[in-house]
Amino acid sequence: MGLIVQKFGGSSVANTERVMNVARIVTDTYKKGNDVVVVVSAQGDTTDDLIAKAKEISHHNSKREMDMLMAAGEQISIALLAMAIEELGCPAISLLGWQAGFRTDSVYSAARIKKVETDRIKTELDNRKIVVVAGFQGLNKYQDMTTLGRGGSDTSAVAIAAALNADRCQIFTDVDGVYTADPRKVKGARRLQEITYDEMLELATLGAQVLNNRSVEMAKKYNVELEVISSLNPIPGTIVKETTKMEKMLVRGVTKDKDVSKISIVGVEDVPGIAFKVFSQLAKNNINVDIILQSVGRDNTKDIVFTVSMANEEEAVECIKALPFIGDAKVFSDNTVAKVSVVGAGMETHPGTASKMFEALYGKGINIQTISTSEIKISVLIDEKDADKAVSAVHEAFFGND
Amino acid sequence: MGLIVQKFGGSSVANTERVMNVARIVTDTYKKGNDVVVVVSAQGDTTDDLIAKAKEISHHNSKREMDMLMAAGEQISIALLAMAIEELGCPAISLLGWQAGFRTDSVYSAARIKKVETDRIKTELDNRKIVVVAGFQGLNKYQDMTTLGRGGSDTSAVAIAAALNADRCQIFTDVDGVYTADPRKVKGARRLQEITYDEMLELATLGAQVLNNRSVEMAKKYNVELEVISSLNPIPGTIVKETTKMEKMLVRGVTKDKDVSKISIVGVEDVPGIAFKVFSQLAKNNINVDIILQSVGRDNTKDIVFTVSMANEEEAVECIKALPFIGDAKVFSDNTVAKVSVVGAGMETHPGTASKMFEALYGKGINIQTISTSEIKISVLIDEKDADKAVSAVHEAFFGND
Repeated sequence: MGLIVQKFGGSSVANTERVMNVARIVTDTYKKGNDVVVVVSAQGDTTDDLIAKAKEISHHNSKREMDMLMAAGEQISIALLAMAIEELGCPAISLLGWQAGFRTDSVYSAARIKKVETDRIKTELDNRKIVVVAGFQGLNKYQDMTTLGRGGSDTSAVAIAAALNADRCQIFTDVDGVYTADPRKVKGARRLQEITYDEMLELATLGAQVLNNRSVEMAKKYNVELEVISSLNPIPGTIVKETTKMEKMLVRGVTKDKDVSKISIVGVEDVPGIAFKVFSQLAKNNINVDIILQSVGRDNTKDIVFTVSMANEEEAVECIKALPFIGDAKVFSDNTVAKVSVVGAGMETHPGTASKMFEALYGKGINIQTISTSEIKISVLIDEKDADKAVSAVHEAFFGND
Repeated sequence: MGLIVQKFGGSSVANTERVMNVARIVTDTYKKGNDVVVVVSAQGDTTDDLIAKAKEISHHNSKREMDMLMAAGEQISIALLAMAIEELGCPAISLLGWQAGFRTDSVYSAARIKKVETDRIKTELDNRKIVVVAGFQGLNKYQDMTTLGRGGSDTSAVAIAAALNADRCQIFTDVDGVYTADPRKVKGARRLQEITYDEMLELATLGAQVLNNRSVEMAKKYNVELEVISSLNPIPGTIVKETTKMEKMLVRGVTKDKDVSKISIVGVEDVPGIAFKVFSQLAKNNINVDIILQSVGRDNTKDIVFTVSMANEEEAVECIKALPFIGDAKVFSDNTVAKVSVVGAGMETHPGTASKMFEALYGKGINIQTISTSEIKISVLIDEKDADKAVSAVHEAFFGND
């Protein structure tokens, strides 16, 4: 018994049948004696429908009015879920973001949570209500509706769990946990019982897409114990927390990311400040850079290679070419690459991890274009067509193939 | 130049084309130098769609959650209209009921407005914004969303006009004003330039259905000048105000109402208190009574006849029959009747009005079952099948047939 925060995404409440399914999960938790706060997103396609309506009017609508529009989506889903919970015989109350105390800054469509004033939620919990909260939304100091941007409902759930000092924050998804690799593609992929925040962050960044990164960062900061759990399959999920039980496993998972474009600057003059100028120029244009490699080239020149998401490929090339010092250097991009990574907090003390990964790739004749490492991950860029084969080979090397 | 409140119903903003049409009307008013507050309802079928979703979950949803659900409807329409106004180059800001200062009691789904705190609206008007307000909704003292019930957006508009001391409150509809009779049915029906609150109230009660009664009552109380005006046809509408210019017209209009059931109690014992007991019993059951007639019958008995809407017919008969003193009196109902009325503030000083009406009906061989009069109206109950013929005949008698 304790205080549980449960979060359900848009597909989990897409229609009446699924709303009732969520209501059953919630009331089961409540009937076991727990206090329950539920955070929900807008129903399935509601968000897309609302965006379509707005686009019929204009393609450059103000973000303030877009947030007003979008916030109606969760308002519908919280009311319906509260009705469904009441229909199952438990007391419920729905609260909009602002009623639940979400105070944000004023960056419309991508607001940051400043604080959660929990008085109202606490009062309702004291009254033994199941509290259904609209995720993704808050109120700024002008008393105007804001939204947190994509993935914001995960963050709403973690913020409430942190503010209420909840015993656990369960993120319900259509998968039943975090796996060592994509179970639909890799034979022998295993579900993890536990994983650390840092490992989860690396996995999310690397394309595992189970949890929104921002929510994991917040969970780490406030030490909120997360559980990634299935809304369809009633088995325990994967716990995300600060430290995990000692396990033999050095590597937590193998991931791939095909949304990668490799930008190369070859033969730029080898003088100080080049890297600074390149990457500050990219930052100014809001282009996120992932892997960065710099190598000395020939004849007093050097080469810089970095990766961006494919959406930013063209703009990145254009803004590098526009730099005055680029001169005769060649700038070109390649989006037929994929990033394959192994993640695991244990690897930094085990130097054999990298060579085991490279050996597995070599064994399948896969050429490594670029290598990048951090304390808890090793990433390689390879030809996109080799990606699935590479993940399977690396996974088998670390986890076997049973 | 002045401060104008404009109200648009759900059909006026049903799709993008109509939202743009509304935005043009609003911006035209603004560009003439007026301050403009716009009150809108939910888009066309949104309300019905939301009700359908709720009914899929349960047929006895709590009213608090229904109000939370329904309030999402206007949130969508105000955001879209604000975007449309901005698209036409004028500054706009949308405000939810609570942001616009609507404070209500806690009767969910039929809340009454307690006050409108206009600070926010005034600030936005001072900034030369067109303020787009969600009609139909408010906030109670528990900080929960409430709705005002059907027709509530008219009331929202009048309440804002009253609180801001606006120069005029324009209610846009799909008709271009108030007519002496239904122009689709009666040849020679004329559009009125002006009409008093009391006359409008009688017309509304009698089935003209142009304006919500509650909003007219509020307009009368706070002396808000109303204009019933077309959102499609850009001509002046009908002004509703306290006193109108002296006009020759004794009668403002002729209306009919077919949603009438006549309940008869024949032969009840003639002792004091019978009428009191009958009508207090009906009131206890929330049954609204319109015309009431009581006549002495025979042998120390009397007869009571009254009318209710057809939806209440069965319940009214049942609850009368259950009264202990009814004894052998006969209770029966008839819903094949219609009420035809003439309305006009001038008629009380002109005794010829009633006889002129009765003569017109007699001329067409129409039998009058019941007559009821007030200072500004004369109503008769007749056979339903004669209703249209009766309206035409009476209208011709007062207005000619040109």
